Amino acid sequence: MIEVNGLADVVAATTEIASVDGVRGQLVYRGHAANELALRHSFEDVAALLWTGTGAGRCEPCGDPEIGAKLQRLRSVDDWVLEVVDRLPSSADLMSVLRTAVSALGVHSDWPPTLEQALSLTAKVPTLITYRWARQRGIHPTSPNPHLPHVANYLYMVHDGRKASPAHVRALQAYMILAMEHGMNASTFAARVVTSTQSDLASALTAAIGAMKGPLHGGAPSEVMTMLEDIGTPDRARPWLRTQLEQGKRLMGFGHRIYKTEDPRAVALREVVSRLRQDDPWFTLALQVEADAVDLLAEFKPGRRLYANVEFWAACILRAVGIPKELYTPTFTTSRMVGWTAHVLEQAACNRLIRPQSVYAGPLPPETT
Amino acid sequence: MIEVNGLADVVAATTEIASVDGVRGQLVYRGHAANELALRHSFEDVAALLWTGTGAGRCEPCGDPEIGAKLQRLRSVDDWVLEVVDRLPSSADLMSVLRTAVSALGVHSDWPPTLEQALSLTAKVPTLITYRWARQRGIHPTSPNPHLPHVANYLYMVHDGRKASPAHVRALQAYMILAMEHGMNASTFAARVVTSTQSDLASALTAAIGAMKGPLHGGAPSEVMTMLEDIGTPDRARPWLRTQLEQGKRLMGFGHRIYKTEDPRAVALREVVSRLRQDDPWFTLALQVEADAVDLLAEFKPGRRLYANVEFWAACILRAVGIPKELYTPTFTTSRMVGWTAHVLEQAACNRLIRPQSVYAGPLPPETT
Repeated sequence: MIEVNGLADVVAATTEIASVDGVRGQLVYRGHAANELALRHSFEDVAALLWTGTGAGRCEPCGDPEIGAKLQRLRSVDDWVLEVVDRLPSSADLMSVLRTAVSALGVHSDWPPTLEQALSLTAKVPTLITYRWARQRGIHPTSPNPHLPHVANYLYMVHDGRKASPAHVRALQAYMILAMEHGMNASTFAARVVTSTQSDLASALTAAIGAMKGPLHGGAPSEVMTMLEDIGTPDRARPWLRTQLEQGKRLMGFGHRIYKTEDPRAVALREVVSRLRQDDPWFTLALQVEADAVDLLAEFKPGRRLYANVEFWAACILRAVGIPKELYTPTFTTSRMVGWTAHVLEQAACNRLIRPQSVYAGPLPPETT
Repeated sequence: MIEVNGLADVVAATTEIASVDGVRGQLVYRGHAANELALRHSFEDVAALLWTGTGAGRCEPCGDPEIGAKLQRLRSVDDWVLEVVDRLPSSADLMSVLRTAVSALGVHSDWPPTLEQALSLTAKVPTLITYRWARQRGIHPTSPNPHLPHVANYLYMVHDGRKASPAHVRALQAYMILAMEHGMNASTFAARVVTSTQSDLASALTAAIGAMKGPLHGGAPSEVMTMLEDIGTPDRARPWLRTQLEQGKRLMGFGHRIYKTEDPRAVALREVVSRLRQDDPWFTLALQVEADAVDLLAEFKPGRRLYANVEFWAACILRAVGIPKELYTPTFTTSRMVGWTAHVLEQAACNRLIRPQSVYAGPLPPETT
């Protein structure tokens, strides 16, 4: 009989990067409420905060302007890496392609991991994703636009060279900031375990990307998307949701295993969507679906206190800004690169091998029993 | 302040694959003493035992003959994967190449992981290693020999098509059987963490290869090798070792963090080396160095009970059979593929997400303090 407790009650690391307080509904990035950061700051500023701690002294996260400039400069990917990507079968999923490409990119990323390596790989992941995505559609890949910041450039490359609206950039940036980091999740933990052997950054990141690929890790924004598309218009939300609940079906995008109160990331994304509701019909639809669902869940599942989670709002924003479903998990990965690399740098700075025990439940050789 | 306890006292899984008993000095593979298996059985038989449990009912591990035949049939690697390998910079180390190649090979290895996938990747790793190793030396890579079993074929490919002596195959096979599996080490744990998200086998294995790449993981056979080469002849062993100890230097290849008594793998490999001592001067040398070192360690470090560990004998055997230093960790990886894949199959069979906690040691936002 195999029993794995999942280490749910075990502390695997002390970290200064983020605090996930599920009881109080608080997510903190180096001393700052993540939901505040998502509403007021750029991807580059928050990445700088997570990497270097700049601005963590209770002041505004001023961000290291160097980091934004470097992220911009480091976006190009060498031809030989693109050739590796081109050799992979067209039927390969994007996360497997990304795992292989990051592994290839990092063949020289020796110990110890550095901020420069973290910047370089974080800068290149959007280029890799959109390069492959264009190739899969038989379209000439769009080169990075050196005049656009990280998130706007990502959308620009996803959309084959079309610039996105400011509202779309703002909404996606808020999502990508809140997706950057979330404590000791399975992918971050895998990265730290690999780093603990004094292996290199690319090894840690391929492990993390591999873990992120698993459906038990990353939530299910694409199932929420299917729900929003099925509902279609705000007036259809309540009857649609009621029918689901009457049939005993689960509503996708509500509830979270850690947050007992509202997920602070969901609160922030609802705020963003609410502020921009006039800019996109998907925003209006999602706000109505959420209001009706919370009502109906209170009726059908009293006392459970189920709220819209981050996947709900992520799906709404990703759909609104025109990120196709195939790019949902890769976009999450683009953001989480910051958290993973910050954890790898932290692990390396004060390293100890992570090597737990196992219990043997099989037979022993005759002479020893 | 970052404090990581390394999970040294935490049980992360219950397993039926192997038992590592450091106090009694016993390593058990599914009910069989691993040192007995290494002396009497083939790589294929022991791999079948670890994968399927065949023969674990206190009888001899008969091994599934199908598995040996399949391992033999699955050795060829598609051209597109070799083209990926060829695109990687010639300065890339072999473990980074292997991580990338296994990631590429497994772009279609969907959930759940299967024994067929495990066989295929295990069969192909020796081919990938020796292909790249030949390319690095500007030599035409040797194709797998369909008439040779796993270990003999690996040596054949390493040596550009020369067949190895039976004594060398026997010694290397004993090492490779004992290197297959060792409980919940960092690489195996990384593989199980990745699998726990319901990600695929290739993701788990790239994580494991990445962890194995770290110097804190795999021991240091190449440092033992340097020591044996420095000593050169049996008569020089005692004065050389005494000088080292008088200078306060550490002897490489003695002691183990888990085994308080003799490492059972070391006992088995010494037995193999001892039986084959006439077949290779390195065997004679290593036996003399070990005898003198154990003597001198008892004198210089009384009460510490330091014995030759598995890296000591591994280095001796790998040097004797002509595995170059660059291939030490890849050869270890070739063996450990069996243990990793067995653990992934076990984890998948009764899965639960592995997601530990972290403790936040940074500041909190002003309004909450």
